[in-house]
Amino acid sequence: METASSRQGAAQGDTLISTVMASIRRRIVSRGLTPGARLPSIRALATTMRVSKSTVVEAYERLAAEGLIRARPGSGYYVSAPMAPLSLAEIGPRLDREVDPLWISRQSLDAGDTVLKPGCGWLPASWMPHEAIRRGLRTASRAADATLADYGTPLGLRPLRELLARRMGAHGIPAAPEQVMLSESGTHTLDLICRYLLEPGNTVVVDDPCYFNFHALLRAHRARVVSVPYGPDGPDIAKFAAVLEEHRPRLYLTNSGIHNPTGATLSPVTAHRLLKLADQHELIIVEDDIFADFEISPAPRLAAFDGLERVIATGSFSKTLSASVRCGYVAARPDWLEGLVDLKIATSFGGSHFAEALVLNLLIDGSYRKHLEALRVKLARSMAETAGRLEAIGIRPWLMPQAGMFLWCHLPEGVDAGNVARQALAEDIVLAPGNAFSLSQTAHGFMRFNVAQSGDERIYRSLEAAMRG
Amino acid sequence: METASSRQGAAQGDTLISTVMASIRRRIVSRGLTPGARLPSIRALATTMRVSKSTVVEAYERLAAEGLIRARPGSGYYVSAPMAPLSLAEIGPRLDREVDPLWISRQSLDAGDTVLKPGCGWLPASWMPHEAIRRGLRTASRAADATLADYGTPLGLRPLRELLARRMGAHGIPAAPEQVMLSESGTHTLDLICRYLLEPGNTVVVDDPCYFNFHALLRAHRARVVSVPYGPDGPDIAKFAAVLEEHRPRLYLTNSGIHNPTGATLSPVTAHRLLKLADQHELIIVEDDIFADFEISPAPRLAAFDGLERVIATGSFSKTLSASVRCGYVAARPDWLEGLVDLKIATSFGGSHFAEALVLNLLIDGSYRKHLEALRVKLARSMAETAGRLEAIGIRPWLMPQAGMFLWCHLPEGVDAGNVARQALAEDIVLAPGNAFSLSQTAHGFMRFNVAQSGDERIYRSLEAAMRG
Repeated sequence: METASSRQGAAQGDTLISTVMASIRRRIVSRGLTPGARLPSIRALATTMRVSKSTVVEAYERLAAEGLIRARPGSGYYVSAPMAPLSLAEIGPRLDREVDPLWISRQSLDAGDTVLKPGCGWLPASWMPHEAIRRGLRTASRAADATLADYGTPLGLRPLRELLARRMGAHGIPAAPEQVMLSESGTHTLDLICRYLLEPGNTVVVDDPCYFNFHALLRAHRARVVSVPYGPDGPDIAKFAAVLEEHRPRLYLTNSGIHNPTGATLSPVTAHRLLKLADQHELIIVEDDIFADFEISPAPRLAAFDGLERVIATGSFSKTLSASVRCGYVAARPDWLEGLVDLKIATSFGGSHFAEALVLNLLIDGSYRKHLEALRVKLARSMAETAGRLEAIGIRPWLMPQAGMFLWCHLPEGVDAGNVARQALAEDIVLAPGNAFSLSQTAHGFMRFNVAQSGDERIYRSLEAAMRG
Repeated sequence: METASSRQGAAQGDTLISTVMASIRRRIVSRGLTPGARLPSIRALATTMRVSKSTVVEAYERLAAEGLIRARPGSGYYVSAPMAPLSLAEIGPRLDREVDPLWISRQSLDAGDTVLKPGCGWLPASWMPHEAIRRGLRTASRAADATLADYGTPLGLRPLRELLARRMGAHGIPAAPEQVMLSESGTHTLDLICRYLLEPGNTVVVDDPCYFNFHALLRAHRARVVSVPYGPDGPDIAKFAAVLEEHRPRLYLTNSGIHNPTGATLSPVTAHRLLKLADQHELIIVEDDIFADFEISPAPRLAAFDGLERVIATGSFSKTLSASVRCGYVAARPDWLEGLVDLKIATSFGGSHFAEALVLNLLIDGSYRKHLEALRVKLARSMAETAGRLEAIGIRPWLMPQAGMFLWCHLPEGVDAGNVARQALAEDIVLAPGNAFSLSQTAHGFMRFNVAQSGDERIYRSLEAAMRG
């Protein structure tokens, strides 16, 4: 029969066992004990921790049952090879699986035709220049064998690099074609840059809020992430300076032109101050210019102010041409570009000769320019309409962007965007709640709307219902 | 005027300065001093190292001139943020830039039409099914808007995954379509897997010799690499066991079907013993099946023996269909696949809906099967011809492969493949010297020939001349 004192003894034993387990866990997590390492002998650990040998035995057995360590008969206990690998589930801004950043992407990418996606980050396929793409494919079907079957060259198709260099030149970015490398996508470009410049544990600054996939990407690189509030003119310079002093980050990852998700535009003064700070602190800046072609009057570019010294400029055509024709690009210092080319070969070998040729064809026939002109008009109209409809139900834009597809909005006082997103998802509506964009998790009262995906009346009815709680 | 003794004193001072510099460099490289860290004060270091303060000052000044550290007035010296980032130049098997693994890839990818490429790893564009690709593109030009303009779904096009699952089933690999994810290429797939499973510093086993880009890829992941000799039946099992005991690797990265570069075929017995060892040591195996479609009678697959428990199967169509239509795939345990999908989104967002649809079209119309049948006949003929021509100049195949495009050959006694490759490159012939494939650098007397790229008489004349020295 169990007595009070035996229960008490058992409870105390349990506490000691837990203490031993916690100590071993800590050493494994901190990599004081690495996979395959032999654990201290039972006798040795019992002495060190001043517990009985049976306590250590029990702690080891429980850890072995968890799979964290394993016994090898006659040889002791060893740290298991970690079968549970890098998980992105623990990326910075985390809500729950229904509304975490990766989940929004997965939901949006996976959504069937019946799902509404005001939270997604791209235009509906019907807004893309499909007739031009069809024409481009027919042209491509008559291309040389090599275009159809060979790997791309290490830097990528020369005429496309020349065209991109001219486009960047028009934004004041002095990129020679030799400084431009093509990649498989905008995200792929950022991934290569992170791989090139970051070591695990390096610190990276992002905007708060910022494009949510930056968090996932940086987590994949095991970077430490810190954030600086983003205002209507760009990042808060005083806070940026403080973050540089305190954290000595290696990189600042931002997007220019039209900021995602806020729609804000960097001012020349902020750009100047930012670059001055970057110089002082040897900070490298990656400027993702993926929304460049939405702009009506071009915003300042950090890469133009800096002249590609410590700024790396990237972009792609996924947002304005086709997400299906994968082609991104990067312009950087020649010495860095060399390293990026090596990494591109090591991790994805050649690019797609074919996709590069197709993008080039689409850019040089006049249809892309016409498509953009029409697109800007259409977006401006949707922007005004969506803002009006949102305001009618109490959702106010934080700022009216100069262009682009995003509206960053305040929800009514006291309404939690995560709750609203969860409820909407149950009705097959994918929303983008503010905290998915916010490392500091201070954007629970915000929501990003894609005005090109917000035409359906059901969205507003669902929002109203969800906001009533 | 300089005297002998002052010269001697200066020389001695120089030695001390160098000693101090070396000590600081060592601490920075070993990350005992990390970027941004403050260096020891001049007084403190002088005391510790028993040198004068002026010696330390001079050492610090020289390190600052090199850019490794920097002075901050009134505050001391600090380790610079490393502007020189991850370099792949130091990958395992390293010859010199002219013949190192990455350089072979870059040369081959960059080569114009006048360059001969018996060292490259793919078929000439003229051997690829370009008429089928052209037809596929015309079909694609009539596809739905979404195919042309949208991102692919997270797992990739369902009908293509079903088809791949059936193909793997035919090799005895029990992959459900839900266990298959599409990616942008074979190399991209391996990159995602490494990212998912490896932490920096983890150990990976490769074959010796193995596909040279594995070395570059693993270096990009900061993995430790160890190798096991590969024989005609697969890896040397006794040495494999010893490596597992000694290094406790996390992964074994290999390619099956037809081994690159040796052309060898894994035997069922070796497969069984390998998997038994893998079980005992919790080793995960990545089996790259990129040459599957060259096979005439299928070799055993580790993934079939194992049933996708600890083996991950990967492949692509770059070698047999088109390197320009980027589409790879992976089949893995469902829990691992989830993680891979997250990483794919984080690092490359969606795949190409379009490329996936194009591959599917090409695979289901009968032309791919016919293309393969013709290709196998053509390769067998080239294999015999190339072997004959090589033997005529004293270069003997190590093994006559059952199929595929590679011949792994002994050079005549005393001839160094690196030297031969360097000389040939001067004549615009890209060769693949043995040590590029060999972590242990024991293959200096070997060379890999791509029989589909070895038709030109110039190659043999150049080889003969280079071997004469």
